[in-house]
Amino acid sequence: MFIKKFNTDLEKIHYLKLDKEQLLLEALTEYAKKNNIKTAEISFIGAVQNVKVMYFNQIIKEYEHHELQGGHEVLSGLGNVSLLDGEPFVHIHMTVADKEGKAFGGHLDAGTRVWLIEAIIKEINSKESIKRKLDNELCLNVWKN
Amino acid sequence: MFIKKFNTDLEKIHYLKLDKEQLLLEALTEYAKKNNIKTAEISFIGAVQNVKVMYFNQIIKEYEHHELQGGHEVLSGLGNVSLLDGEPFVHIHMTVADKEGKAFGGHLDAGTRVWLIEAIIKEINSKESIKRKLDNELCLNVWKN
Amino acid sequence: MFIKKFNTDLEKIHYLKLDKEQLLLEALTEYAKKNNIKTAEISFIGAVQNVKVMYFNQIIKEYEHHELQGGHEVLSGLGNVSLLDGEPFVHIHMTVADKEGKAFGGHLDAGTRVWLIEAIIKEINSKESIKRKLDNELCLNVWKN
Repeated sequence: MFIKKFNTDLEKIHYLKLDKEQLLLEALTEYAKKNNIKTAEISFIGAVQNVKVMYFNQIIKEYEHHELQGGHEVLSGLGNVSLLDGEPFVHIHMTVADKEGKAFGGHLDAGTRVWLIEAIIKEINSKESIKRKLDNELCLNVWKN
Repeated sequence: MFIKKFNTDLEKIHYLKLDKEQLLLEALTEYAKKNNIKTAEISFIGAVQNVKVMYFNQIIKEYEHHELQGGHEVLSGLGNVSLLDGEPFVHIHMTVADKEGKAFGGHLDAGTRVWLIEAIIKEINSKESIKRKLDNELCLNVWKN
Repeated sequence: MFIKKFNTDLEKIHYLKLDKEQLLLEALTEYAKKNNIKTAEISFIGAVQNVKVMYFNQIIKEYEHHELQGGHEVLSGLGNVSLLDGEPFVHIHMTVADKEGKAFGGHLDAGTRVWLIEAIIKEINSKESIKRKLDNELCLNVWKN
């Protein structure tokens, strides 16, 4: 179990609206890099024009890709920023609802196009930061000291 | 892209239990108004007695309404408070589960009746606040300077 | 309606990775107890090896149990820590997605096994804390003064 604790007086809070036609994961990653956000919690709601998410197959240890066409409500986007190879890396899981309200989701993939997103980023503004390194058993980059 | 940053020493945290028979969106809005909450993040879990949510149809740019009868678990309520025409406005997307566990959701609408809700509101206690104005292209009130 | 307000300079933020084979609810509860966390918000994403959640039947006022086998993405884990009989009590609602991306969820039950979980715990570090007591009408332990 990896544990790191921060005091809250180190936190900076960003309110962010993403615009129509921006790519969701790409825009959040670019924002994190431009603002040098090394450790943060991200949450968002809104709507997207299409949905690209992934499912991690724990047996073959590979991602499987899902794509949904058309407008979807974003019920929740939840995740974090940490450092991978010294660069801000955004990890988000997203739940969406289709026209009938049915919910669907996965690990947010590149290529998901925004209709309107309202995001709140709670950045840890400390010298210490959360870093990812490859876990050989899981075949995933995980938080490690 | 709209961006506003706040320091965390401006944050005030409200723990709120909503009671059986209260209306969920209406009670949160009334609380925000009574407490003059201008900018905040909201998250909640719990249960509701019925579900009223909306889907924004991006083609005709109008909301479509969904209603589910009966008790549902609230898997996540996520959203924010900002100012619309100078008044606190609560924007929430909600995911619920039915008796079989199947998930469903959308933009929280008026008329959803609480069974029990545990909400946490993280208020920005600053002179600056987030404001909404009409976006003519989207036909939605969005965060704007 | 129960209300308690805290200033944010009392907040402490924990970044936590849970490891493969840990039990999700049990590990979070043990962490809260070991660290004497009395009041906190919890959010997490990741993946689990199986899913055990509950639905509260509002008519008979009893929990019904759901179990799903196999790997699932955790789209959102959302909840809180408060005190029940003087001990830290973890209350979480979880949304998961199966191999097809379909979403499912409920009140997180014991016995859910972690694949990988990234959790953020925002602890209120105050003399005051949130306490639960039995609500005789709801047959649930709720936040009370």
